[in-house]
Amino acid sequence: MGDTFGHLFRITTWGESHGGAVGVVIDGCPSGLALDEALLQRELDRRRPGQSRIVTQRKEHDTAQIVSGVFEGRTTGTAISILVWNQDARPQAYEHLKDLFRPSHADFTYEQKFGFRDWMGGGRSSARETIGRVAAGAVAKALLRECCGAEVLAWVEQIHDLRAKVNRDTVSEADIEANMVRCPDAAMAEKMLARIDEIRKQGDSLGGIVRAHVRNMPAGLGEPVFDKLTAELAKALMSLPATRGVEFGLGFDAVLLRGSEHNDAFESRNGAIRTSTNRSGGIQGGISNGEDLELRIAFKPTATINFEQDTVTREGKAVKLRAKGRHDPCVLPRAVPMVDNMIALVLVDHFLRNQAKTLDRLKS
Amino acid sequence: MGDTFGHLFRITTWGESHGGAVGVVIDGCPSGLALDEALLQRELDRRRPGQSRIVTQRKEHDTAQIVSGVFEGRTTGTAISILVWNQDARPQAYEHLKDLFRPSHADFTYEQKFGFRDWMGGGRSSARETIGRVAAGAVAKALLRECCGAEVLAWVEQIHDLRAKVNRDTVSEADIEANMVRCPDAAMAEKMLARIDEIRKQGDSLGGIVRAHVRNMPAGLGEPVFDKLTAELAKALMSLPATRGVEFGLGFDAVLLRGSEHNDAFESRNGAIRTSTNRSGGIQGGISNGEDLELRIAFKPTATINFEQDTVTREGKAVKLRAKGRHDPCVLPRAVPMVDNMIALVLVDHFLRNQAKTLDRLKS
Amino acid sequence: MGDTFGHLFRITTWGESHGGAVGVVIDGCPSGLALDEALLQRELDRRRPGQSRIVTQRKEHDTAQIVSGVFEGRTTGTAISILVWNQDARPQAYEHLKDLFRPSHADFTYEQKFGFRDWMGGGRSSARETIGRVAAGAVAKALLRECCGAEVLAWVEQIHDLRAKVNRDTVSEADIEANMVRCPDAAMAEKMLARIDEIRKQGDSLGGIVRAHVRNMPAGLGEPVFDKLTAELAKALMSLPATRGVEFGLGFDAVLLRGSEHNDAFESRNGAIRTSTNRSGGIQGGISNGEDLELRIAFKPTATINFEQDTVTREGKAVKLRAKGRHDPCVLPRAVPMVDNMIALVLVDHFLRNQAKTLDRLKS
Amino acid sequence: MGDTFGHLFRITTWGESHGGAVGVVIDGCPSGLALDEALLQRELDRRRPGQSRIVTQRKEHDTAQIVSGVFEGRTTGTAISILVWNQDARPQAYEHLKDLFRPSHADFTYEQKFGFRDWMGGGRSSARETIGRVAAGAVAKALLRECCGAEVLAWVEQIHDLRAKVNRDTVSEADIEANMVRCPDAAMAEKMLARIDEIRKQGDSLGGIVRAHVRNMPAGLGEPVFDKLTAELAKALMSLPATRGVEFGLGFDAVLLRGSEHNDAFESRNGAIRTSTNRSGGIQGGISNGEDLELRIAFKPTATINFEQDTVTREGKAVKLRAKGRHDPCVLPRAVPMVDNMIALVLVDHFLRNQAKTLDRLKS
Repeated sequence: MGDTFGHLFRITTWGESHGGAVGVVIDGCPSGLALDEALLQRELDRRRPGQSRIVTQRKEHDTAQIVSGVFEGRTTGTAISILVWNQDARPQAYEHLKDLFRPSHADFTYEQKFGFRDWMGGGRSSARETIGRVAAGAVAKALLRECCGAEVLAWVEQIHDLRAKVNRDTVSEADIEANMVRCPDAAMAEKMLARIDEIRKQGDSLGGIVRAHVRNMPAGLGEPVFDKLTAELAKALMSLPATRGVEFGLGFDAVLLRGSEHNDAFESRNGAIRTSTNRSGGIQGGISNGEDLELRIAFKPTATINFEQDTVTREGKAVKLRAKGRHDPCVLPRAVPMVDNMIALVLVDHFLRNQAKTLDRLKS
Repeated sequence: MGDTFGHLFRITTWGESHGGAVGVVIDGCPSGLALDEALLQRELDRRRPGQSRIVTQRKEHDTAQIVSGVFEGRTTGTAISILVWNQDARPQAYEHLKDLFRPSHADFTYEQKFGFRDWMGGGRSSARETIGRVAAGAVAKALLRECCGAEVLAWVEQIHDLRAKVNRDTVSEADIEANMVRCPDAAMAEKMLARIDEIRKQGDSLGGIVRAHVRNMPAGLGEPVFDKLTAELAKALMSLPATRGVEFGLGFDAVLLRGSEHNDAFESRNGAIRTSTNRSGGIQGGISNGEDLELRIAFKPTATINFEQDTVTREGKAVKLRAKGRHDPCVLPRAVPMVDNMIALVLVDHFLRNQAKTLDRLKS
Repeated sequence: MGDTFGHLFRITTWGESHGGAVGVVIDGCPSGLALDEALLQRELDRRRPGQSRIVTQRKEHDTAQIVSGVFEGRTTGTAISILVWNQDARPQAYEHLKDLFRPSHADFTYEQKFGFRDWMGGGRSSARETIGRVAAGAVAKALLRECCGAEVLAWVEQIHDLRAKVNRDTVSEADIEANMVRCPDAAMAEKMLARIDEIRKQGDSLGGIVRAHVRNMPAGLGEPVFDKLTAELAKALMSLPATRGVEFGLGFDAVLLRGSEHNDAFESRNGAIRTSTNRSGGIQGGISNGEDLELRIAFKPTATINFEQDTVTREGKAVKLRAKGRHDPCVLPRAVPMVDNMIALVLVDHFLRNQAKTLDRLKS
Repeated sequence: MGDTFGHLFRITTWGESHGGAVGVVIDGCPSGLALDEALLQRELDRRRPGQSRIVTQRKEHDTAQIVSGVFEGRTTGTAISILVWNQDARPQAYEHLKDLFRPSHADFTYEQKFGFRDWMGGGRSSARETIGRVAAGAVAKALLRECCGAEVLAWVEQIHDLRAKVNRDTVSEADIEANMVRCPDAAMAEKMLARIDEIRKQGDSLGGIVRAHVRNMPAGLGEPVFDKLTAELAKALMSLPATRGVEFGLGFDAVLLRGSEHNDAFESRNGAIRTSTNRSGGIQGGISNGEDLELRIAFKPTATINFEQDTVTREGKAVKLRAKGRHDPCVLPRAVPMVDNMIALVLVDHFLRNQAKTLDRLKS
């Protein structure tokens, strides 16, 4: 259980790091959307290994194949199946790990849960699992563009203690994609790059923070009580590998303000009701208010490092471990498309749910 | 949609601040659990208005009534329905708010979503909605005690800039309940109390941070991919009113460490495989590893304040607003039972899901 | 599990025969629908015990109380909670049954599943459980009237071997409600009445067939593959107590025809594409084609009879049983509103699901 | 929506008749089950086109490929993805149908729902869609064998007006598979074969009835209220293509009996509590009682016939149609594995759900 996400735009992902393939089934995509492999590939290329020197050098083209649900270039409204064949699996690279537990990986917990585990490259716990999400996110983004114009941006805001300064009102996708770190503060991106290079040479790893920002948000997305937009986004993002926390608007810093300092006053602006500040990050009472969504997600440093580490075997015997698999010294550049695509998936799901919300709309 | 939570231990809540009653239906509670109203009341009293001078003075006894699913003192395995009648609803206190939007409340977003709104006390967006969750959480806690011994604790760690120091290994429920703030650092609790009193007199409000800690955690809870324990807990907690962020283990601070500093080494301890540190907060790869769960949740300052605030009417006309409803100057003391009970709900659901995970277990 | 039904218009029922109350929570009803207790009561009165001499004489008014989700006479879009207090519970009438299993009741199976059972009046397996469904169905019918004009009719077509002749094109709700059997063939209704009276005096019971017919059906309801309209209706109807089978269109008789005899040709009629026959009963490939829905549901004879029957105690000791509880000699008259309201629930759910199906609609 | 089925053993199918491939993702299969392609192939071969002269002559090997979820011959507990490439798609054979609606097919209803349709071989409405279900059913059957020994049998009981006589207590899978009709009454199978041959030559088609029978049923499967075993089986079976009705135990014939004739008395037999008759077909109050499951499913005559038929174009113009695609003159022989595998899927799902039902079990 747990491989399915969403209520009306529902995705089911499958696949392991070193199994034959990985993929996704999208159930609930409306009919009539123009869709082809190129549209998917654009997002998959942002997530792909080997895209730059600072990510894992596993050689994967991650070429998406649509095998159902599209007819003559348009979605049919039935299940869309997308698959990507693994090309550069090297199971033998993991053979020395099969009887021991890599620190801060899922080896131990999978074995506790399932009684044994697929020890090749983390099996299902590999970040390769996110290919399906990103491919589905590409479809979600296309749908958002057609239906409501919402634009989902995410970028690297911080790596280690290096924090970027970005004008959130003007930053563009091109700014983000302008460098291999995906940090639109070009000067800071250089420093981050240097830091990653340095740490990579040491065999160590780094974490960081991704900030997301959604423009042209429709108001009214999110449900009362459990399926609040904050709650659904939090689940979506915390389901990504290596995430440690998520916050909305001012987040944890909101606790330092008083109510009189934190509240967002309403005003009329250009004929619309707007807030004069956006400390809430676009969500009030769990429902979007039409202001830009603002959120931040923390990623821990990659667990795989080229250091000798203490661990134990499956029988509990103390051993020393030195990992040999290819890995990202810092997951952040590749986490960006995971974040923006997961957000797109949540927004589309709630946009579709909203179609059935008022009698007035149903009658029209 | 969105009033139901959980996959095998599934709760559906209902009710408004000023409607007749609030309640919950629990579907999926195993049969044979001893359950009576006293067990529910203990948790509801921790959430209740009027429990101390620093919370809202609305007069509610929040007396729970079990109207189905229990027979001769034990759960039957069928739907458990629990209800609490509202006693001190004062809709007239909200009449002056019916045509305008309170800043940072759900008034505007509900109206955007549903076309109109129940303006009495926030309707469904009132924190009174959490009564159902807490009552259900009481059942979940009882089940955890019987089945796996897990103990869920939560306390106030920070209010405004006042941060408590608490020994997480030794803190007890009695320590937490020892003062009206629910902060087990007695000296700091005094300061927090003084700060809340001060801010209350000014008509302003405060936010803060709740820390949660689960002992005797079973390993193996949480599912790969989307229903990771982190993801499900994040959803559960971010669905609580006024939450702004959630983090696990070291959370956002994890980004300041290198992998070699952050990884939790495995060791054999007393015949069991354990981690020598717990920077991951008890969850690796989205699945519990048997170490204590550690998480933190940020709550914004209460939106209702006795200040004159700028806002607009439903027609967009600028007006001044001064709230008159009774409210909490600081939601934290009452947020504690919301947090620990939501965590219990997630843990029970995943404990039950885990029963069907391995062929070995099914054969026994 | 299993007390919740529906995907977008989702109901959760609760309550036992002799517990305090029974009820339902409706999650997903669009906002803005006019709703009051009188609208519910009309359907509940059709299901009510004591409505005529041929049904159980238990004295229940089944008065519905709406305790959330309606504000100033309209649905708010949030959870609607409806409850009905039990008034004439007589648990003592079941005391002699507590240690034995009534033949063809759920006593034995509940005990096998849950380890023990609520022996008062069948507990959750009582037909009293359907009150929540019927109340929710009243809301669903109101929504259908507002949104698409679909009219759901059901009537008693057969009792024992007595089969009515009814003109399906012209029969009206008034014809159905004209007699206490709910059979619009007045002459046959008399015979059925006599048969029920006769069998009731003997202490025996009868079964029969309900036919359902939906006019003004929107085309396009139902989903490919698993959530076909046939499949969802079959589940909904087979979840009613005492049902033994369901069939659509010509049903089991379709097997006696060849394809050339069974196919429904398409034609243009009054500017619309229609079928010239309706052997498919309004559903092709699992999706409605706009023709009238036609289906039939079989109900077994009531299990409770005033005959001495062989059974065993919980310990397996052979005993003789003679039931004493009040009961329906024939469930059919009261099954009619259960059937038409369950159908309404399925249709509304699929009507709402259909709002998110095509890009064209989403763009408008 | 609607491509996913099951609550704990959850399958999602995808694929079209003439798209690249068809497949299924199984989410929730316990870890540790021995699984390979041969096990799947055995069931797929029973469903395969071209298996005999009386089924469609489309040339498909339907070779299953497991691309995730199995490691070293055992299921890992994570998502199992299975795919089958289409080999003998001939889209051009459908080109003459693209602008008109085949009678009693899903052409018209898909177009009503989705605005346009994949006209190649019925797209998603093709019976080829059931490959995924049958492959998943093979896994479910393996699990049933390991966990509870339940044996699911199904056979052709009736074709047109030819009805077999079968001893349900002794019939074996070998008896069923002994002839190409899958009717274990060998003499009647010959007559059925002759009838199918005759009708095939005429270009017409036939329907029939499949009977299913489950031995070694565990008691206690099925949930109160909506997820009754009858309800879930009815949904599963009515979601198969061409089904018209389903009945349990005596089914529609039960209405001809009185309660005193229909009730199943309890008795002690070989130390167990059993019913002396099984008119209920193994399910009482929606929950299995440990007796054999008995049910029947009606299939209509195949809609595709080589007759000239009246229909209309998408613009509503009257035209004559003569189908050219390869098709089954009688779907029954291939419906048998669809039925038994769907039943296995429902049983496994409920077997897994039952693991979390009683406190006693959870404590052990």
